[in-house]
Amino acid sequence: MKTDADYMQLALDLAASAKGNTNPNPVVGAVLVKNGVIVGTGLHRKAGEPHAEVHAFNMAGHHAEGATLYVTLEPCSHYGKTPPCANLVKDSKVSRVVVATTDPNPSVAGRGINIIRDAGIEVEVGLLEKEARKLNERFIHNMLTNRPFVTSKFAMTLDGKIATHTGHSKWITSDVARLKVHELRNEVDGILVGIGTVIADNPALTTRLPNQKGKNPTRIILDSELKIPLTAQVTDTSVAPTIIVCSNAAEASKIKQLKDKGIQIVTVSNQNGLNLEEMLDELYKLGITDLLVEGGAEVNASFLKARLINKFLVYIAPKILGGRNSKSPFTGPDVSTMDEALELQYEKVEQIGVDLLITAYPKLGE
Amino acid sequence: MKTDADYMQLALDLAASAKGNTNPNPVVGAVLVKNGVIVGTGLHRKAGEPHAEVHAFNMAGHHAEGATLYVTLEPCSHYGKTPPCANLVKDSKVSRVVVATTDPNPSVAGRGINIIRDAGIEVEVGLLEKEARKLNERFIHNMLTNRPFVTSKFAMTLDGKIATHTGHSKWITSDVARLKVHELRNEVDGILVGIGTVIADNPALTTRLPNQKGKNPTRIILDSELKIPLTAQVTDTSVAPTIIVCSNAAEASKIKQLKDKGIQIVTVSNQNGLNLEEMLDELYKLGITDLLVEGGAEVNASFLKARLINKFLVYIAPKILGGRNSKSPFTGPDVSTMDEALELQYEKVEQIGVDLLITAYPKLGE
Amino acid sequence: MKTDADYMQLALDLAASAKGNTNPNPVVGAVLVKNGVIVGTGLHRKAGEPHAEVHAFNMAGHHAEGATLYVTLEPCSHYGKTPPCANLVKDSKVSRVVVATTDPNPSVAGRGINIIRDAGIEVEVGLLEKEARKLNERFIHNMLTNRPFVTSKFAMTLDGKIATHTGHSKWITSDVARLKVHELRNEVDGILVGIGTVIADNPALTTRLPNQKGKNPTRIILDSELKIPLTAQVTDTSVAPTIIVCSNAAEASKIKQLKDKGIQIVTVSNQNGLNLEEMLDELYKLGITDLLVEGGAEVNASFLKARLINKFLVYIAPKILGGRNSKSPFTGPDVSTMDEALELQYEKVEQIGVDLLITAYPKLGE
Amino acid sequence: MKTDADYMQLALDLAASAKGNTNPNPVVGAVLVKNGVIVGTGLHRKAGEPHAEVHAFNMAGHHAEGATLYVTLEPCSHYGKTPPCANLVKDSKVSRVVVATTDPNPSVAGRGINIIRDAGIEVEVGLLEKEARKLNERFIHNMLTNRPFVTSKFAMTLDGKIATHTGHSKWITSDVARLKVHELRNEVDGILVGIGTVIADNPALTTRLPNQKGKNPTRIILDSELKIPLTAQVTDTSVAPTIIVCSNAAEASKIKQLKDKGIQIVTVSNQNGLNLEEMLDELYKLGITDLLVEGGAEVNASFLKARLINKFLVYIAPKILGGRNSKSPFTGPDVSTMDEALELQYEKVEQIGVDLLITAYPKLGE
Ligand SMILES: [Zn+2]
Ligand SMILES: [Zn+2]
Ligand SMILES: [Zn+2]
Ligand SMILES: [Zn+2]
Repeated sequence: MKTDADYMQLALDLAASAKGNTNPNPVVGAVLVKNGVIVGTGLHRKAGEPHAEVHAFNMAGHHAEGATLYVTLEPCSHYGKTPPCANLVKDSKVSRVVVATTDPNPSVAGRGINIIRDAGIEVEVGLLEKEARKLNERFIHNMLTNRPFVTSKFAMTLDGKIATHTGHSKWITSDVARLKVHELRNEVDGILVGIGTVIADNPALTTRLPNQKGKNPTRIILDSELKIPLTAQVTDTSVAPTIIVCSNAAEASKIKQLKDKGIQIVTVSNQNGLNLEEMLDELYKLGITDLLVEGGAEVNASFLKARLINKFLVYIAPKILGGRNSKSPFTGPDVSTMDEALELQYEKVEQIGVDLLITAYPKLGE
Repeated sequence: MKTDADYMQLALDLAASAKGNTNPNPVVGAVLVKNGVIVGTGLHRKAGEPHAEVHAFNMAGHHAEGATLYVTLEPCSHYGKTPPCANLVKDSKVSRVVVATTDPNPSVAGRGINIIRDAGIEVEVGLLEKEARKLNERFIHNMLTNRPFVTSKFAMTLDGKIATHTGHSKWITSDVARLKVHELRNEVDGILVGIGTVIADNPALTTRLPNQKGKNPTRIILDSELKIPLTAQVTDTSVAPTIIVCSNAAEASKIKQLKDKGIQIVTVSNQNGLNLEEMLDELYKLGITDLLVEGGAEVNASFLKARLINKFLVYIAPKILGGRNSKSPFTGPDVSTMDEALELQYEKVEQIGVDLLITAYPKLGE
Repeated sequence: MKTDADYMQLALDLAASAKGNTNPNPVVGAVLVKNGVIVGTGLHRKAGEPHAEVHAFNMAGHHAEGATLYVTLEPCSHYGKTPPCANLVKDSKVSRVVVATTDPNPSVAGRGINIIRDAGIEVEVGLLEKEARKLNERFIHNMLTNRPFVTSKFAMTLDGKIATHTGHSKWITSDVARLKVHELRNEVDGILVGIGTVIADNPALTTRLPNQKGKNPTRIILDSELKIPLTAQVTDTSVAPTIIVCSNAAEASKIKQLKDKGIQIVTVSNQNGLNLEEMLDELYKLGITDLLVEGGAEVNASFLKARLINKFLVYIAPKILGGRNSKSPFTGPDVSTMDEALELQYEKVEQIGVDLLITAYPKLGE
Repeated sequence: MKTDADYMQLALDLAASAKGNTNPNPVVGAVLVKNGVIVGTGLHRKAGEPHAEVHAFNMAGHHAEGATLYVTLEPCSHYGKTPPCANLVKDSKVSRVVVATTDPNPSVAGRGINIIRDAGIEVEVGLLEKEARKLNERFIHNMLTNRPFVTSKFAMTLDGKIATHTGHSKWITSDVARLKVHELRNEVDGILVGIGTVIADNPALTTRLPNQKGKNPTRIILDSELKIPLTAQVTDTSVAPTIIVCSNAAEASKIKQLKDKGIQIVTVSNQNGLNLEEMLDELYKLGITDLLVEGGAEVNASFLKARLINKFLVYIAPKILGGRNSKSPFTGPDVSTMDEALELQYEKVEQIGVDLLITAYPKLGE
């Protein structure tokens, strides 16, 4: 006999399949079960489309009566593109609702649950909560800070090098690891690099996946003085949108040229470097909820120094490079003692092809 | 019912317990089994002490007759401190011998087995051979090259840094990882650092273990021009032996001063750095079979460049340090492209306290 | 990245949840996936309700275009209560279909797949086929034989006893095992006992489940001479339907009495016992697709002798009863040598509370 | 780094290898460890041979000083064939002793430990105690009851039958299971059957093992009235010793005939069957510490009724036999209700070839 946790896990699996597709919305899965039979299933597939609960109730029809609803996030309570799911649940005649976690938005948390409870329906909260919150870490961060969730991703050798002194970095990691990076780009809505990377490598920063059409994230270029060449691949907005972040002292004529190419310009204050907090505030307003920082080392260091990185993805290739001037993943101003390091906690270590992938988060309180 | 592999695993476990204690000899374990009863067990505990087979036959007494001998390495065939074990086996009336791997010394490999086979005893070779060879990787390397087995060990942050620009490196790794390093020192017979490390940190390079008396390895200092202060901790040979490796142009008076303190001096040619191959040849003659290279970055780089490292042990602390001039584990002459990196294969990844420990070997053919 | 097998497993899990609810239909699950997002899910919940594919396409809407359909059974090709799913798939613009197993009905197997292939859609068959066939073992047996799938279930002590000589059998197994038996009753559509059991125990043969309304199977009583008392609990058809199987020589007046109580009468020939093949043919016509034989020992033996049991579920309680005349699970005519035993293969052994549950099937070729 | 439990497990493994070989003594293993090196290992191989500790100290020599001794049973404290091991330990200069379990003999338990503690050596008791006691379950039972440990072994079909009504039982179980039975015979020192089995099958009751010389247990025949034919295989005491248990009213002349063949006669009182308690008392005096009861059904039932079985080993073949008069493993006087059954607890279920082997013990308090 299946348990509540089995059904909630199914709802989480359904939700997880849409990860990266629902921005700015969370991913949500829902399962309706009656007398042991799954009578309805649903997930939120994309902003603007029906919520998970709607699909589940559609499939269930009259079987919803007396059923249990398993849902990975508190049903919504506001009138948006669709009527609130909490009302749908209230009217559904289900006899019990199991919720993995409440709405992270502090101003509405609990409202959806209250609507349902007030209708006399039993509600339990907290089943597989940790997993549910991990799955929506991006959305929860958005709600609590009104900024994008920032992931720093880099690939290095086992001696901590991302390139030779000439900047040569092909191919640090294996095919399999590179494919995984493109899967990641497919999930985020913004990818950020510094102007140095654009000038050195002229990357397209698009998503290339073998058997499916990838989604290209918005390219975001940190370019304080607007040094970007108009011929850079990232200036071709027919491929994907581009945002350039510059100092508010940047030259108006260059701004105009870039805008004419369809590029959005975000200006922020500049004091020992562009103000990244301001930038994140602006990017979030522009709809960037999920930001992948791909370097280079100075850009990485700015984010590190400002303690703005929410997650680290580090690929380690089975190689020792050496070389006095080989490049490190982070540069930036010097630090005197180890105490100044950002402390992390490892989340997991995976073998990806021949490489290792280490996932880590800033330690709580850091 | 136990299988041959079960008994060989027991022999390997016995052998493994003496790892680091038997140098320059290999570790060897032996198990005698008759009608399912273990009638004799033995291991080689220390050079100069009885071989594994001797202990096993001692315990077995007349039960050896008709028994099966499981031994992790081909029984020896030469007259050394003890008569050859092959003869012991030949005379033992065992009915069958199972050997994990042959003697790595190409000039004697197979001789012990032949002595036994010629006595009409059935011999099988190759059971758990891979495990048996891994266990004696140090010894096998010695036999094939007449040089010590070189392990490079370093601890870095997740962004590849071993110290801040000031050289501050306390405490990159956790207590648990540091304890494990001392367990490693307890196993090797030589630990090597550069003069830079001696001058900067003045380490004792001794083994400190909580509940047991550690064995101090010989300290080996790479000091081309004999800049070592006579007050350095490592010059106190009452604690542990010390070898200083210098250029053959080093000053004779300083050599004398050091010798007076009981330090051994090894002189090698110097051309863009001390000739490490020569040094390894000499160290092996001096009884160093197992060499742990603990840095710094220039010393590491010399070993890397000469492709003399047989094994890597890399501790990765859950920290991001950053800093333009923070220290990397390897420096040395610049390399132009990634193709020049030494390719490795990962052996295992362990969690040691909060840190990761990655074990890797140079890829075959590198 | 999820694999084909992951999505097929999800489809199987969805299907499995309806096991016992879809009779006479098979259980079927379907999942639609586009660019890694699950865009549709469905299962067949109950005969007369939409097929799995219909639910999946309903949820998917326009997302079905270019998606992959994972379905646990070949889409149907006949016009029944609903139009054939094969046509639905054909018109759906999916780009690929993965089918676990073909239709077991030999006269239609492959037709659905052909319809889809003829529309130019890629079809793969056989992923997780073994699991898919196990899940529908009842349905497959029905299609191939036009008879119910027969499961023999009994509970005995570790010395093979189902009751004392007085017939006392309370409580051989534990609460947990008894609950599982009721879960099983909830899944089948017929439960069969002999008249001896009715007379001795007067059971209700209904399903009792703690937190859900069970489905009562049809009670089927083997009662050659219609000895059943009109007061027996199973004659109360307001609780659940009842079929009594008797010899075609049974007394017409008793038949009438029973029919008046709403009981169905099935008459079969009788020659050294009721003809069970005839009976199974009739029961299948009456809609019994899944038959749980709960004994007693003579009834069990008749099924055994006729080699009509498709599956064995044996609970073994941790008890030794002893007693010369204690009851065994099978009696029947004597057998001379062990060769006459029905050979089985064990499928699994589970611990259910303190008891063991052994699942076994007749060995292939038996 | 290895833990105390690792070394104790090694000691248990060494001990286990001699299981069945040390009767009437317990099996014991010992391991000496110094600074992480196993410096001594030993086990008790056979009654009359050195104790485990002696072997371990022999191998260790001067390395015992300061070492830790891991021993699976409290060192002995009495002067027997060898001086007490507790004194040996006391004089060994070990610094710590870890004991799995104390001596089960209540009159000496703790004495050995006290001798060692009084010498100022740290002693810890109880590591892997459960495993150590299971390993010596036979010895512990002997010490507490002065009777053999009784194991009831039988093989039946999945419907609880050990033979057809004609007594045909070849081959209920597979080759693999039969081999395992001979391994078991090799471990015990007595095997008991009833006269019925002797007359029906004329078995030799010897041990046949493929690649080793088995040890034949003493054959014990329950034969109240001395009906045994003088031609029965078990009367040939040149193969293995035989004991016949009869009523004290048995015919003197037949007793003489049997004694002349070298058979030992044990007479016990007879009241509704031979008095099994008396018999066990006598057998223990004759050196039977471990008794395998192999039936038939009446003999099994007598042991069951007297609640004298300490362990059950039940092979279940994947077969359903049926047959009104097929044989059950236990007969004996009838029991009225299930409450009279002997309650067991399952220890483990193994697949042995195609058969299952269930190990069970009487429930505590039964
Ligand atoms: Zn909603
Ligand atoms: Zn030797
Ligand atoms: Zn259909
Ligand atoms: Zn002793």
